[in-house]
Amino acid sequence: MHRSQREQVRALFTQHRIDAALFASPASVTWLTGFAAPVQTGGNPFAAAPPLLWWADGHFTLIVVDGMAPLATAFSQDEDGSLLTYRGYTIDGPVDSLRQLRTVLNELWLPQASRAKRWRIAVESAAIPVAVTNVLAEASGFAPWLIIDGWLEPLRMVKTAEELAKLRENFRLTDIGHAAARSAVAAGVREIDVWEAARTAVERASGCRVPMGNDCVVGYRQQNIGGWPLDFALRAGDSIIVDLSTIRDGYWSDSCATYVAGAPNERLRAIHRVASDALTMGAGLLRPGAVAGEIDRQMRAFIANAGYPVYPHHTGHGVGVTGHEAPRLIPGSTAVLEAGMVILLEPGIYFAGDTGVRVEDAFLIVEGGAQRLTSHDKSLG
Amino acid sequence: MHRSQREQVRALFTQHRIDAALFASPASVTWLTGFAAPVQTGGNPFAAAPPLLWWADGHFTLIVVDGMAPLATAFSQDEDGSLLTYRGYTIDGPVDSLRQLRTVLNELWLPQASRAKRWRIAVESAAIPVAVTNVLAEASGFAPWLIIDGWLEPLRMVKTAEELAKLRENFRLTDIGHAAARSAVAAGVREIDVWEAARTAVERASGCRVPMGNDCVVGYRQQNIGGWPLDFALRAGDSIIVDLSTIRDGYWSDSCATYVAGAPNERLRAIHRVASDALTMGAGLLRPGAVAGEIDRQMRAFIANAGYPVYPHHTGHGVGVTGHEAPRLIPGSTAVLEAGMVILLEPGIYFAGDTGVRVEDAFLIVEGGAQRLTSHDKSLG
Repeated sequence: MHRSQREQVRALFTQHRIDAALFASPASVTWLTGFAAPVQTGGNPFAAAPPLLWWADGHFTLIVVDGMAPLATAFSQDEDGSLLTYRGYTIDGPVDSLRQLRTVLNELWLPQASRAKRWRIAVESAAIPVAVTNVLAEASGFAPWLIIDGWLEPLRMVKTAEELAKLRENFRLTDIGHAAARSAVAAGVREIDVWEAARTAVERASGCRVPMGNDCVVGYRQQNIGGWPLDFALRAGDSIIVDLSTIRDGYWSDSCATYVAGAPNERLRAIHRVASDALTMGAGLLRPGAVAGEIDRQMRAFIANAGYPVYPHHTGHGVGVTGHEAPRLIPGSTAVLEAGMVILLEPGIYFAGDTGVRVEDAFLIVEGGAQRLTSHDKSLG
Repeated sequence: MHRSQREQVRALFTQHRIDAALFASPASVTWLTGFAAPVQTGGNPFAAAPPLLWWADGHFTLIVVDGMAPLATAFSQDEDGSLLTYRGYTIDGPVDSLRQLRTVLNELWLPQASRAKRWRIAVESAAIPVAVTNVLAEASGFAPWLIIDGWLEPLRMVKTAEELAKLRENFRLTDIGHAAARSAVAAGVREIDVWEAARTAVERASGCRVPMGNDCVVGYRQQNIGGWPLDFALRAGDSIIVDLSTIRDGYWSDSCATYVAGAPNERLRAIHRVASDALTMGAGLLRPGAVAGEIDRQMRAFIANAGYPVYPHHTGHGVGVTGHEAPRLIPGSTAVLEAGMVILLEPGIYFAGDTGVRVEDAFLIVEGGAQRLTSHDKSLG
């Protein structure tokens, strides 16, 4: 799994004369290994650290608490990957997973210590606990580290076939969620009820738990651009923005539609039409070579020219092992689209405390244009 | 909020001559402040670090990405607490939250640098990213730190009235989840369907999203002690263990019952009776002064004496800002129960790949005994 990602990192590190690296950001670990830790209830209570990935001598070692080992078998079967676990839960004494982790890290690093003193070691400083770097420092003779936070993000922009399959599965799930949300919307129904309809449909279709974001907000909320569902109820004519991401195998989707309880009034129809037309226009600009900031500019201008307030958020963004990643379609961005990128476009029009609409589709950039990956019905139903 | 927790830490730190401290474990931060970051989709994509809590000169400073500020207003209104935020999401340029965080940390720490060189600074090493300790090291002249991972866990065992109110609300929610799960169980229904029924009931009753654990597994799974729901379907006579936690305001509940599709056979009735009797017996042992290991021993002996295999997990555990915390009821534990602790007891009997039962209640230890906090129907319905 994910061999070509590891090849890219090898090439990058060779270029920068990096001898070893320690990854800890969930995005990096998933992108490099295909392994994804469950997130729905927070960190594993018996783990001493997030999943770690050590690279040295061309080999990747994934280091996880023992309870996560079953999720990492696919990676450990690759010839350039292996799995190292440490004890978390036990009834034979106190949970001492930090001591257990230190022990396996010492066993991993101490034999390499004499060489490592001369190594250039790369670390992701924002994600690695100091308890882990302390062990590395002791074992490697306090080698000066190279900080590589964010280095992988540009590499992640163009997706592999393996990643596209994971993304497509997620977009299939968000389509299912939207169909259920659309059916659930009616006067008297609350945001949380709409959300439950979507989630239940997604998890039943998946046959397992699926982490879900992003927004489920009625138009009359003061903060009506986004937010998690609460118990605000729809009244006849109210709009509700439903912006769904699902996460399977560590990969995200994204998508948005606006629904209405009963019949929309003329203004709601009008702003929905403008936002939808902006999306269609923007989609027509997507192709290899297109500049992110220029698409952003044209879509904002389209809304402004129609006489409406321009959305205060990004126009779009990439998606992959995080829900929002490069390239970002924001004012002034000079990022250039390439075939194989997956891009979301999400224009909206909002009147705080009153009403709001947003529509969002995902696109795969291909030779000469873009292919839509989302298939949900975005009509103002 | 949570003033008495902060008083306890002040007393502990005075005793150990600690001048300043940096907390980063979600459990510590929630326990000390009442603030809890959302967890359902993983870490905040625009945050450079987990929420941090800095203590110095008797004052607590919570440091979070700007998007989380609305969740922290209650804490920031306390006179010994304040809130420091750094920019995460922006469309005015790249997301550079790590740089933003470093800037606010420097502003916080540099004015104290000359004093801090002589300080004894405590840190939670397993949770704090090295990017953060690097800033602290530069600002404090590389003072030797005192590692305090796990120091707060013993303090967390006895709950305050404020915490008990949060826990009771969670137990109320798990009761609601269990009632829905019980109604959903039938031949042909899958684990994920039972789970969705429970979750939908919990989130609708809450009017918001609620993270939920723990287990939803049919008896014929090979690993039938625990696990998240999959698409295994119940057949007539099959048992299903439903073990539910909810998390609201950063506080957990826990609870378990075993349901059956249709009529249970005689063996299932028998093992359910033994597990239930073990729970009742164990509950009768709960009181201030009782020794955790002795309760564990007696409950295991009860199962063994009935001629059944003894469960391979703990007998029980505490609950609070994590789902499984001290005191643990495991073999040999010398922990002594005290009034104000909240204890789960969860005996089970399992035949791998065949059938299994577990029942679990939560108890508040009170003068002379214990008060049950869970009210779900644990009969083999």
